[in-house]
Amino acid sequence: HQSKLPNLETTIFSVMSALAHKHKAINLSQGFPDFKGDQKLIDLVSANMNAGYNYYAPMPGVLKLREAIAKKYDDLYSSTYNPDNEITVTAGATQAIYTAITALIRPGDEVIVFRPAYDCYIPSIELNGGKAISIQLHKPDYKIDWNNVAKAINNNTKMIIINTPHNPSGTVFSKEDMLQLQKLTNNTNIVVLSDEVYEHIIFDDEQHQSVCLFPELKSRSFITASFGKTFHNTGWKTGYCCAPKELMDEFVKVHQFNVFSVNHPIQLALAVYLEEPNHYLDLSQLFQEKRDLFLNLIKDSKFTFTPSKGTYFQALDYSNISNENDYDLAIRLTKEHGIASIPISVFNKNKLDEKMLRFCFAKTDDTLKRGAEILCNI
Amino acid sequence: HQSKLPNLETTIFSVMSALAHKHKAINLSQGFPDFKGDQKLIDLVSANMNAGYNYYAPMPGVLKLREAIAKKYDDLYSSTYNPDNEITVTAGATQAIYTAITALIRPGDEVIVFRPAYDCYIPSIELNGGKAISIQLHKPDYKIDWNNVAKAINNNTKMIIINTPHNPSGTVFSKEDMLQLQKLTNNTNIVVLSDEVYEHIIFDDEQHQSVCLFPELKSRSFITASFGKTFHNTGWKTGYCCAPKELMDEFVKVHQFNVFSVNHPIQLALAVYLEEPNHYLDLSQLFQEKRDLFLNLIKDSKFTFTPSKGTYFQALDYSNISNENDYDLAIRLTKEHGIASIPISVFNKNKLDEKMLRFCFAKTDDTLKRGAEILCNI
Ligand SMILES: CSCCC(=O)C(=O)O
Ligand SMILES: CSCCC(=O)C(=O)O
Repeated sequence: HQSKLPNLETTIFSVMSALAHKHKAINLSQGFPDFKGDQKLIDLVSANMNAGYNYYAPMPGVLKLREAIAKKYDDLYSSTYNPDNEITVTAGATQAIYTAITALIRPGDEVIVFRPAYDCYIPSIELNGGKAISIQLHKPDYKIDWNNVAKAINNNTKMIIINTPHNPSGTVFSKEDMLQLQKLTNNTNIVVLSDEVYEHIIFDDEQHQSVCLFPELKSRSFITASFGKTFHNTGWKTGYCCAPKELMDEFVKVHQFNVFSVNHPIQLALAVYLEEPNHYLDLSQLFQEKRDLFLNLIKDSKFTFTPSKGTYFQALDYSNISNENDYDLAIRLTKEHGIASIPISVFNKNKLDEKMLRFCFAKTDDTLKRGAEILCNI
Repeated sequence: HQSKLPNLETTIFSVMSALAHKHKAINLSQGFPDFKGDQKLIDLVSANMNAGYNYYAPMPGVLKLREAIAKKYDDLYSSTYNPDNEITVTAGATQAIYTAITALIRPGDEVIVFRPAYDCYIPSIELNGGKAISIQLHKPDYKIDWNNVAKAINNNTKMIIINTPHNPSGTVFSKEDMLQLQKLTNNTNIVVLSDEVYEHIIFDDEQHQSVCLFPELKSRSFITASFGKTFHNTGWKTGYCCAPKELMDEFVKVHQFNVFSVNHPIQLALAVYLEEPNHYLDLSQLFQEKRDLFLNLIKDSKFTFTPSKGTYFQALDYSNISNENDYDLAIRLTKEHGIASIPISVFNKNKLDEKMLRFCFAKTDDTLKRGAEILCNI
């Protein structure tokens, strides 16, 4: 058999976490908190299991949870979705992204992707016979020149994938970016997939630019989101997708035969937990303090950086330190120095190496201190 | 936009469960137990959450769980899989089936499917541009004429999907069926997808015919399986896939970008729980007693039947009762008589109506008694 994805390697997150584990390195590679989330939420899940809610949840998700999600959009953005037919709960944001792409992309369709790009986008496009059209962005600010996007659009362009706050760079879209995107896609059939998994982790005076704030964009967009990133339980694998009904109708056709439905006791727990806005509103402050701690601890190292504006990642430039390519360096730092990171080249077009490593600061202060100490000695 | 699945309707399981809920009918439609599973397993999950195992599980699944699965195959069938690279834990059997199909099927490929067929197979094939070649089986025994399969095979045949014990008919494959399948696929490139979610629910003197018992078949087969069906927690959405390394390599390429990984605290709990073989070996007796109770209670009704040989479903023939098509009847029984079932025509080629309804007997004895009483009055 010939592989459908002949050149695909194991995802970098598995590779680096396994290597960190093997070498007992401090793991700042894969993006997940190493501290425990709220015991209240855990207790809610246990109570639901004990009460017997262990049978199938409804296919699009528990209605109370979809209503709580709708309310969040109303509260935060005054731009909501109909819980009956515009919101689906998913087995994590990855499944939401895969399902949205699969629902729309056919052989020959083109999808515009900004690089560095989270590593599930392009294989999902290619599995459906689509073609990823990469627009490479560059350190340190990863700014989009929308003229380049305009030039990349043609009659085969079916989708544009955006991600703000942006993983791995920690940059965010401005309102002007969104207006440019809206202008470019207006009066076209192009659908936008807006990966907003870090919507609640945004720093300094930045504002999250959700597609739902821009009515014409919203009418052609999927939003994908993650409870794991927001409530410190990436291992529960829950997220969701919102979209106008006509897009959600197509999403659900795939979803019902891809996973059918999602963990029932967790959904019921999230429905209650989401009612309290502080459970997500407090997130930016928590992670801004961690970012500040981490950057303060490495300010005298040889790494250089632009402070992350969102996500729980900090990109560090090591061009003052080494000429090695970032992949080799990430491996060597894990093996020899006991600290694991993610080489940003794996997300770039043709593995462009800009001498950048990504570090996750969603870690206990102690982990960050021990990690920073190592980085200061490199 | 033109839909990729233009004729697809909402899955019958959502339709009937929602209708049952609306009309407060006894729900013998969707296949899930209405009783609680073992508190021990629930407590294990809670303990894992409390202990902080809420971050990502490894992409192919928790190693201890993969080892426990490997041991089960060794114990039961003396035919095991390598936990390192031949087993992947999935978000339910549906995701395993979808992922196996997506890993191999390309536009133009043909997949042989026996009808009645579980409703996720064909959309999964079609989403990948494949063509389902249906072989219709007939009541009451749903026997396969392997000559028809031989005739359906051609150079485009990429996969054959089998399902034993069979949902919705409750029939099982004989050893002779498996040998025929092995003979037909020997020296071809055809891959077998063996949906074995009801492997532990098999009655009377029947034996489960796993593909792993037939070495040549095993070498070209995926097995998909479900913890939800086995441990009474369909709402936890966990299952797995086994296959020889070269097939599993392709499976994992899709899996890592479809859902990436599966609920961590549940996987750790299942790893411990699976160590005790009685936790699955006791299942056949439990459900055989429920089948016998149900059939005994309806023996004087106007429905006729061949007792189910496996699964937790009983197909009932209503041709003595009504000329209505089975879909209309299932709706009417739910609305007017307060009992919900699944019309088997939805799984048939061209919705062939053989006047058969499927009833789930994975219910408390009390539910079964109340359901049977209604059926006796129809
Ligand atoms: C799905 S594992 C990767 C987690 C993550 O979002 C990241 O590290 O970028
Ligand atoms: C995924 S919901 C359907 C459950 C089931 O396996 C059945 O009812 O056949």
